[in-house]
Amino acid sequence: MTDSHNQEYQKHKKKRVFKKKTNQEVPLDSLAQQLLNGDRKALAQSITLVESRSQNHRKQASELIQRILPAAGKSIRIGITGVPGAGKSTWIESLGKILIGKELKIAILAVDPSSTLSGGSILGDKTRMEQLAHDPNVFIRPSPTAGTLGGVHRMTRETILLCEAAGYDVIIVETVGVGQSESTVRGMVDFFLLLALTGGGDELQGMKKGILELVDAIVINKADGDNRRKANQAKGDYRQLLHLLKPATEGWETSAYTSSAITGDGIEEVWKVIMHFKEETQKSGVFEKRRSSQSLEWMTQLMMDRLFNEFIEQEGRKEQLSRLKEQVLSKKLTPADAIEKLFTQ
Amino acid sequence: MTDSHNQEYQKHKKKRVFKKKTNQEVPLDSLAQQLLNGDRKALAQSITLVESRSQNHRKQASELIQRILPAAGKSIRIGITGVPGAGKSTWIESLGKILIGKELKIAILAVDPSSTLSGGSILGDKTRMEQLAHDPNVFIRPSPTAGTLGGVHRMTRETILLCEAAGYDVIIVETVGVGQSESTVRGMVDFFLLLALTGGGDELQGMKKGILELVDAIVINKADGDNRRKANQAKGDYRQLLHLLKPATEGWETSAYTSSAITGDGIEEVWKVIMHFKEETQKSGVFEKRRSSQSLEWMTQLMMDRLFNEFIEQEGRKEQLSRLKEQVLSKKLTPADAIEKLFTQ
Repeated sequence: MTDSHNQEYQKHKKKRVFKKKTNQEVPLDSLAQQLLNGDRKALAQSITLVESRSQNHRKQASELIQRILPAAGKSIRIGITGVPGAGKSTWIESLGKILIGKELKIAILAVDPSSTLSGGSILGDKTRMEQLAHDPNVFIRPSPTAGTLGGVHRMTRETILLCEAAGYDVIIVETVGVGQSESTVRGMVDFFLLLALTGGGDELQGMKKGILELVDAIVINKADGDNRRKANQAKGDYRQLLHLLKPATEGWETSAYTSSAITGDGIEEVWKVIMHFKEETQKSGVFEKRRSSQSLEWMTQLMMDRLFNEFIEQEGRKEQLSRLKEQVLSKKLTPADAIEKLFTQ
Repeated sequence: MTDSHNQEYQKHKKKRVFKKKTNQEVPLDSLAQQLLNGDRKALAQSITLVESRSQNHRKQASELIQRILPAAGKSIRIGITGVPGAGKSTWIESLGKILIGKELKIAILAVDPSSTLSGGSILGDKTRMEQLAHDPNVFIRPSPTAGTLGGVHRMTRETILLCEAAGYDVIIVETVGVGQSESTVRGMVDFFLLLALTGGGDELQGMKKGILELVDAIVINKADGDNRRKANQAKGDYRQLLHLLKPATEGWETSAYTSSAITGDGIEEVWKVIMHFKEETQKSGVFEKRRSSQSLEWMTQLMMDRLFNEFIEQEGRKEQLSRLKEQVLSKKLTPADAIEKLFTQ
């Protein structure tokens, strides 16, 4: 055997081994049972299954979710966003400690479409939440590194269901404000919270368009020491502004609050706001209505993604589409004519 | 022949006549030439062609646009929205009179997805703009009654091109703030203007979510008589608020102005703002960049609509999809599983 043949053979062998591994049967019955019993290891294993891109694993993940679905849906799902430096991890850790004290089980997940680009990932560095990471009532899962936001989106949605089935009462979905990630998270949580910092009104300009109309609360963090006065000022400014804008949730007035993740001031109050929100929206039916429309919107998005992917994977389609785009940009074709050509040629 | 047979025959005859009419060949060469010469009758005829739903007419419309495309694109496209009662028609008429005085040719179009529901249509009542309607330099076209917003959208985009080829310098697209019509119009114009009324800050709550971040100017109308002081107050409030929000156009600060369509005060100033906007964005390249991305976004939307329509028109798909939606809503299936079933069964 020549060296090159040998290399080929080794490659082939590796492939076979890998293939065998991904085809391995997971004992779904016991996994589901352990998950429903709240077993952490089973939960971690289930999430790995959900995050796998192997066709066979996807099938098993789907079967698993099918089984645990009746036990899911009972948590409060909280989304948290904020600019880098707003202190999201420390803040979540402070909230987490309060919730543990109330004997609640907390799962902390992340949606971070940038993680594949930067190589890193939010929540990836577990030492950032050291005090929570070792608590038996806390489950922390960094962002899957599946690439596209759509992929991360699917996995996080399914992970939420798994955590709920495993008995977690509070699901926190953290995100960085990259690209479409904020509206993605808005589409999967009940309550969406923006963690902001103090500063003159001009700093709002740095915020993403429409973010204020996506959230149910703005919490100005680092309201401690010399910063407290400025934080209160910012709270007033935000409240005035929010009063003018349409709230994110029907029947709920989005307001601004201050807190300090270091002293712990104000965090219990935010939790009370969230509980009040849950009570009010459940009474009015808005809570359930949102969850239903979230499911339908997600279904529509999955369908459109699938239709587009099946179409664009046809022989030569990608090239044809990019050629037509060029012709539209150089004003040789209108968009309507380009699409006509795309579907008739 | 029995009466019922006679009726059938009459119906049949009617159908044939109609069919013959829609198959009628339009002399495209002369129509295009007349259009490029600025002939109003040719323009009206071309728009009728564009609005026709007959397959044959669509083909001819597409050919016509293909021919006139090099002559299109040279106008400034202005979108105008505002709540009912804001005085849009009167305001547009005032602006129109100023523009005629500058020897500019103006086309006024409408996007009104509600017209098929209400039976009426904005701009439908031409007497609303009586002074403009008879001016040779003004072309007014009410909203097509084609039903869906997507249809209205396509026709209005093509009508803009026809008007530009016919030498119109200013295209005004009026819309009522129904459903998605505002972001639709934002997607086809260069400058987007919101016509507002005076009133306490609370009235802003009545505005659609995100509308302030879609527009390039807010004009508080009816700033006359006793209302002038309140209008100036509102202008200040809006300016403060806009200062905090991200502007709709890169490098352009959205601001608030007052005007009175009755006295004519402030309308010339708004025109100057629009001209300044055009100059600045053309210099920075933002103007052309937006037009390009508008074309590509429109192309993508047309493609997705087509993909969805071709899919949903397959035998039994509609029923299957609505059955799956029900199963998702009753939590028997996750959205992901529902879509898996949709594509594999």
